[in-house]
Amino acid sequence: MSVLQEISQNVKSIKQLDYAVLARRANQIQKELSQGVRKPYKELIDLCWGDPHSMDVKPLTFVRQVLAACVYPELMSSHKLPLDVRQRAQWLLGRCDGGSVGSYLAPTGIPEIVQRMSESIRRRDGGVPCNPDNIFISPGSQWSLTVLVNNEAPLRTGILTPVPCHVTTIMSIKSLGAAVIPYFLSEEHGWALQVEELQRALESAKGGCNPVALYVINPGNPAGYVQSRKSIQEVIQFASEKRLFLLADEVYQDCVYGKNSEFVSYKRVLAEMGPPFSDTVEVASFHSVSKGFMGECGLRGGYVELVNLDPNVVKYIFNLICKDSTTPVLAHFAMDLMMNPPRPGDPSYPLYNQVRNAAKHQEHVVNSLPGFSCQPVEGGAFVLPRVFLPPRAIQKAKEEGMQPDTFYCMRLLEEMGVLVSPGCEYGQKEGTYHIRYNIKNKLHFITT
Amino acid sequence: MSVLQEISQNVKSIKQLDYAVLARRANQIQKELSQGVRKPYKELIDLCWGDPHSMDVKPLTFVRQVLAACVYPELMSSHKLPLDVRQRAQWLLGRCDGGSVGSYLAPTGIPEIVQRMSESIRRRDGGVPCNPDNIFISPGSQWSLTVLVNNEAPLRTGILTPVPCHVTTIMSIKSLGAAVIPYFLSEEHGWALQVEELQRALESAKGGCNPVALYVINPGNPAGYVQSRKSIQEVIQFASEKRLFLLADEVYQDCVYGKNSEFVSYKRVLAEMGPPFSDTVEVASFHSVSKGFMGECGLRGGYVELVNLDPNVVKYIFNLICKDSTTPVLAHFAMDLMMNPPRPGDPSYPLYNQVRNAAKHQEHVVNSLPGFSCQPVEGGAFVLPRVFLPPRAIQKAKEEGMQPDTFYCMRLLEEMGVLVSPGCEYGQKEGTYHIRYNIKNKLHFITT
Ligand SMILES: Cc1ncc(COP(=O)(O)O)c(C=O)c1O
Ligand SMILES: Cc1ncc(COP(=O)(O)O)c(C=O)c1O
Repeated sequence: MSVLQEISQNVKSIKQLDYAVLARRANQIQKELSQGVRKPYKELIDLCWGDPHSMDVKPLTFVRQVLAACVYPELMSSHKLPLDVRQRAQWLLGRCDGGSVGSYLAPTGIPEIVQRMSESIRRRDGGVPCNPDNIFISPGSQWSLTVLVNNEAPLRTGILTPVPCHVTTIMSIKSLGAAVIPYFLSEEHGWALQVEELQRALESAKGGCNPVALYVINPGNPAGYVQSRKSIQEVIQFASEKRLFLLADEVYQDCVYGKNSEFVSYKRVLAEMGPPFSDTVEVASFHSVSKGFMGECGLRGGYVELVNLDPNVVKYIFNLICKDSTTPVLAHFAMDLMMNPPRPGDPSYPLYNQVRNAAKHQEHVVNSLPGFSCQPVEGGAFVLPRVFLPPRAIQKAKEEGMQPDTFYCMRLLEEMGVLVSPGCEYGQKEGTYHIRYNIKNKLHFITT
Repeated sequence: MSVLQEISQNVKSIKQLDYAVLARRANQIQKELSQGVRKPYKELIDLCWGDPHSMDVKPLTFVRQVLAACVYPELMSSHKLPLDVRQRAQWLLGRCDGGSVGSYLAPTGIPEIVQRMSESIRRRDGGVPCNPDNIFISPGSQWSLTVLVNNEAPLRTGILTPVPCHVTTIMSIKSLGAAVIPYFLSEEHGWALQVEELQRALESAKGGCNPVALYVINPGNPAGYVQSRKSIQEVIQFASEKRLFLLADEVYQDCVYGKNSEFVSYKRVLAEMGPPFSDTVEVASFHSVSKGFMGECGLRGGYVELVNLDPNVVKYIFNLICKDSTTPVLAHFAMDLMMNPPRPGDPSYPLYNQVRNAAKHQEHVVNSLPGFSCQPVEGGAFVLPRVFLPPRAIQKAKEEGMQPDTFYCMRLLEEMGVLVSPGCEYGQKEGTYHIRYNIKNKLHFITT
């Protein structure tokens, strides 16, 4: 066929996930259950995904009321909606052409919203300045990676990437034609990011690709670690020395619950370190309305803030974003609601605060069950316990053509009706096996 | 700087639009007006954009009510919303994990919605079968072009592209690293697409790139032509002969108002032609909630239907779409509302029908003013009259470093407070000049 040859090799390299096998089987089981087939369980429990709403966590009323009023402004004429909801909706609509969420946005997005975002970031970072011109709203946080990869250079762009890692990032990097340079997080040290390991990974890449960027996830996913200030400083020093662009995936910044953990942004630590670091190390920091206390994955809204980038590069990135213009107006609005939530005294504050805290303090420590070992969970939305599989299970998995942990997950699904995802999906040290499941849901069945 | 070199050449090649100069000046004028500066006009009129809502055209109540109820389901408990609105919202939410628009969608999208879309397409095409597996929802219709370009082949991918052409398409093609092969529409023949011209363009590309696709816009933008069945047959024959992939941008399919014009889809004509055409010529047909009678540009929802593609290619495209997953849940819902609007007998039908017809029958014929000549407008949302500029104006434009038609637009903006866009933005025959403006708005000042 004529076109097959024309489809880029990058796209071809995207493979089906192991998870897909599990998901397909889960769908079948669901059908069987609804047809009355008898199983040891009545309902399937899906703990794979990171979206709280699919786990029956309620969305924030304030957020949904404002968005509904924006979609259907007639709602504002009734007094059923709190005053601050109506005011916010009015303000947001006033930022759109024709006062409608159905208008195209100007390429720059909505300047007033970006301005307010920059103020909110400045507050988060204890006053470190934030230039609105460096903030770009995108359809989800993952999207922005696109601009950072050059697929025309003689040597492939290399990106240092953690193992284990959020799987979508790996797919994005690969499909953009860049090379993944894996560095291993140290499970024994609570999944810590160690500079010696970065060093080793960088050395190993020599000749094969051109390493230009270092991707870090903090707080972590799938492993729920939170980096300390000191750890961040070390990473920044390393990036500075090796002239690496820092891609800081900070989408879980509002999900920290370790008793001694605190989220500090890469940008803030960079500023605190002072020159030469603070004015040379290039950072892109990602955030998303999918995560945090909002959990609005379906709206597709994220942003990237660029630090220390050459204004010429920023201009190119701007042009790229203009060209695609795929971020919906409601995602821009949601960003405003995430960065500027109701304040004490606002009519919506009490309810908002109650729900938000419930989500925030959902502390969770995985108990040690026989055959499991789990690092403390400090942040993020997932836990990644190690599973010690007996040799017989590993042998059986091989016979069925599955990864051992996929095999374990399949058993868990068949016998207990619980869907979790296998560690092989995210990368793991050879000979170790893990499962990942979501902790931001109502059911903590495994530990209880 | 380290990263500048790493930004892909494709991204660098995206240039600022001429239009940006005009938009900047328009912003200034807006400010001046609000500061009380005296001008020959009190208000600025922006006729550049294609989004009806920014032109104060009202969104469809049915659409907005359903979406609001989906965002904030508490609205359904009141009986203020019509029954069919509540039923549709309930049905749509039932298709999401956790019944929330805040959930991630499965990579396949929502199968029941895609199924309903396929039925609607089948009805549109007089019964020509439509396979839901070939339909992909994307964040706006423009996005889907991405998958069709191979930037690793030794010779650049070439795409035959009309002149004049929707400017975003040109930018997308270029930034993907593909080559634009311009073919001229014949202005004297009502902007007709002529096969001899396709032939000439294809010949001219020989050696420079590898022409694999032919992009057509029907109904047209910026030129408001509607292709006849015969014209489509000729294009299909040409594509078949030259083994070209047909990219049929059909987003204006619901905007046809020429007395003797009718929209017929490429897919339908292909089926009617029978073998060998009907089972070999590869077509991608695009549609979007931004256009048609909905005009919901801000939601970012579009789809592509693939015809006669090798299932292996379809699989790659599917993987690519999975990877990015940037289409918001509400865009999926909007798609369902566009493809399955209220029917006679539904409570929302009368109001819906009234507004929809008002939009549809907004017939518009541009009068001949001195210095203007305009082809009849049969469809789409824009008109592209030719402007005959005196040599002195052309000279003056050169002195100011502007394209002559940009210069004309700037004058129109300064002196009359009217913002339209210059033909040079879309491409035009050398020595000819045009302006483009939107006709789907309340104000038809130029002709009245
Ligand atoms: C590390 C990480 N980054 C980003 C995202 C969110 O992506 P998006 O903003 O595109 O929904 C996730 C979602 O699970 C994630 O785990
Ligand atoms: C020819 C053409 N295709 C597509 C689009 C719509 O793009 P989208 O669906 O991304 O909003 C437009 C918008 O003006 C257009 O004119």
